[in-house]
Amino acid sequence: MKKIHDVLLFHEANKGEGFLERLEGKKPLFICTIGTTETAKIPGISAAGKYPELTDYTPPADVELLILGRCKCISGVPVTPEGIPTPALITMAALRLADTPVLIVSGGLKVKPHVPFIDLGGKPGGDIRTGRAVEDVEETLTRAEIAGDNLSRMADYLVIGESIPGGTTTALGVLLAMGIDAKGKVSSSMPGNPHELKIKTVEEGLRATKIKFGSLSRDPISAISHVGDPMMPAFAGLVLGAARRVPVLMAGGTQMCAILAIIKALNPHILENVAIGTTRWIVMDKTSDIKGIVAQIADVPILAADIDFSKSKHEGLRAYEAGVVKEGVGAGGAAITAMTKSRGLITKDILLMEIEKIYESLMRPTP
Amino acid sequence: MKKIHDVLLFHEANKGEGFLERLEGKKPLFICTIGTTETAKIPGISAAGKYPELTDYTPPADVELLILGRCKCISGVPVTPEGIPTPALITMAALRLADTPVLIVSGGLKVKPHVPFIDLGGKPGGDIRTGRAVEDVEETLTRAEIAGDNLSRMADYLVIGESIPGGTTTALGVLLAMGIDAKGKVSSSMPGNPHELKIKTVEEGLRATKIKFGSLSRDPISAISHVGDPMMPAFAGLVLGAARRVPVLMAGGTQMCAILAIIKALNPHILENVAIGTTRWIVMDKTSDIKGIVAQIADVPILAADIDFSKSKHEGLRAYEAGVVKEGVGAGGAAITAMTKSRGLITKDILLMEIEKIYESLMRPTP
Repeated sequence: MKKIHDVLLFHEANKGEGFLERLEGKKPLFICTIGTTETAKIPGISAAGKYPELTDYTPPADVELLILGRCKCISGVPVTPEGIPTPALITMAALRLADTPVLIVSGGLKVKPHVPFIDLGGKPGGDIRTGRAVEDVEETLTRAEIAGDNLSRMADYLVIGESIPGGTTTALGVLLAMGIDAKGKVSSSMPGNPHELKIKTVEEGLRATKIKFGSLSRDPISAISHVGDPMMPAFAGLVLGAARRVPVLMAGGTQMCAILAIIKALNPHILENVAIGTTRWIVMDKTSDIKGIVAQIADVPILAADIDFSKSKHEGLRAYEAGVVKEGVGAGGAAITAMTKSRGLITKDILLMEIEKIYESLMRPTP
Repeated sequence: MKKIHDVLLFHEANKGEGFLERLEGKKPLFICTIGTTETAKIPGISAAGKYPELTDYTPPADVELLILGRCKCISGVPVTPEGIPTPALITMAALRLADTPVLIVSGGLKVKPHVPFIDLGGKPGGDIRTGRAVEDVEETLTRAEIAGDNLSRMADYLVIGESIPGGTTTALGVLLAMGIDAKGKVSSSMPGNPHELKIKTVEEGLRATKIKFGSLSRDPISAISHVGDPMMPAFAGLVLGAARRVPVLMAGGTQMCAILAIIKALNPHILENVAIGTTRWIVMDKTSDIKGIVAQIADVPILAADIDFSKSKHEGLRAYEAGVVKEGVGAGGAAITAMTKSRGLITKDILLMEIEKIYESLMRPTP
């Protein structure tokens, strides 16, 4: 697979190469969109929190890490039930190395972060099994579009990531409602991807609102309202507002497929200015198929940061190689951006060194 | 008085000229900081609203105007009791002409705007007569500083304005608590400046907390907490975070003196990177004395947009020449920025034409 710096051109390689060339040496703005849902608290759905109830704290804690270098709303850092740390460590390392400015955008939160964030007026998400997932989707999307438009005038390009537990399940919901075959294809923060539980959860929500596969293919607002999450209108709105003017790197795993489908339904023209930036762990994952979903939607490139933790000193990082976590908080896109902004001076090895430094300072064993 | 483009070098002219040269042709980010207080509801204190109780709606309505071109939380636009429109019309015209990006930052609001805004976690302000004006000042200031630091990495310089009714009274409170003689010197949105009412209000607050003139000269946090307003920590924090890296134009009238005093007490070094940008109406005002206050604090330049409404077709704009409104929503600073960004192509006449156009579209007589 072709590589530029330490970025793998995984899908639509020629387009991806062109996209990367446009970013080379340019100054990005990194945005992390966040939200919380009741869906994430369904046992077994998400590993983004030590216990299901803790998933409300994961997004605010993640962005506190990015902004402050430490969490304020929880002690320590977000971890999986096995104690593996949040991918925000990767994002943090990448943003620090490349001295990239960061803004936080909330789509709807139960717990607010102790750092500045852009409020779009959205509320936290419900449980998609009820078919009532997100309120006021259109208003949040419109406000995000305004924010994206303004922010696109301040940076050469945007890199947008997300932190929302249970996000691949809600992504599956929106993808199915919009007629994209994503069953068994979305990724997971767990090595054993609980596809059956996700499908069952989504189908319960679709049944509750009598939505059939593809019946909302032209109505992404309705799809989000019923079986989506509050991060989606925030993220999609930012892209819609910004990509008219500047390139946008959508930083995430298979959740980006749902965003892509939403954007395509609302304004397909701007897809020319969009790429997905993720991690090697996502594109190499055998339990999911990002390419298989994206190819059904649009021919946007998928770029993957060739991060490798197999030689890390720390078991908590080596676990990523076994398929834990994989992506989140824009980790892959932030890594790509650090490499591109520095014209390749920041390599995957330098990145790993910085991540290990952060790991050591934040994951000190507590007595 | 020396002029560059249509900007008057009113105070510290040499420094002001140097400051303007640094901005020439550069790309600003305009930020409007907002807040509401119970102080503004004291009858006779503020003209920023048709009735005292409406002052809670003025800041959100002002920023809706800037972002959307129309208000959503009220019908029409904010007006004084006599029906004279908000200075946000001037800001809006200047930002449009110069295609300047805008962000909104809330220090604490009773009514939220229907547009994206940066939340710093602050609460609306109390009535300073109680001596309990603003909660959690330090936290809001710290978060604003973080935002200012990030935003300063995205623009060549920042222009920061404010919309907070009753703001000159709370400014007087903080100035007196910090030992700056500002009695009879703060400006007003009314032609008959109610100095006695303002002084009485502030003195009641100072008495309630046993603060004497100057006893908080080294403790701006405490001064804001007792007799300030929630816009102040947001504004001052943004300047503290941004002016380390880029020039900051503090866009406002005599309220900027309180911000200046706060900044000087917290980090005097950054004042080299700061100027006040206001309107001709403020610097020519006979009922207030911005120069007399600033000179007691620091030798920062005062620049004034030479806006002139005397030949306007509209009575509602000509009223500005009689001393109504005068400044607010960063009007003067936004006008200066439009002139400087366009290297003088945007003149005061072009600005007036655009303001009249906006006035005509928004102030249509309603049946």
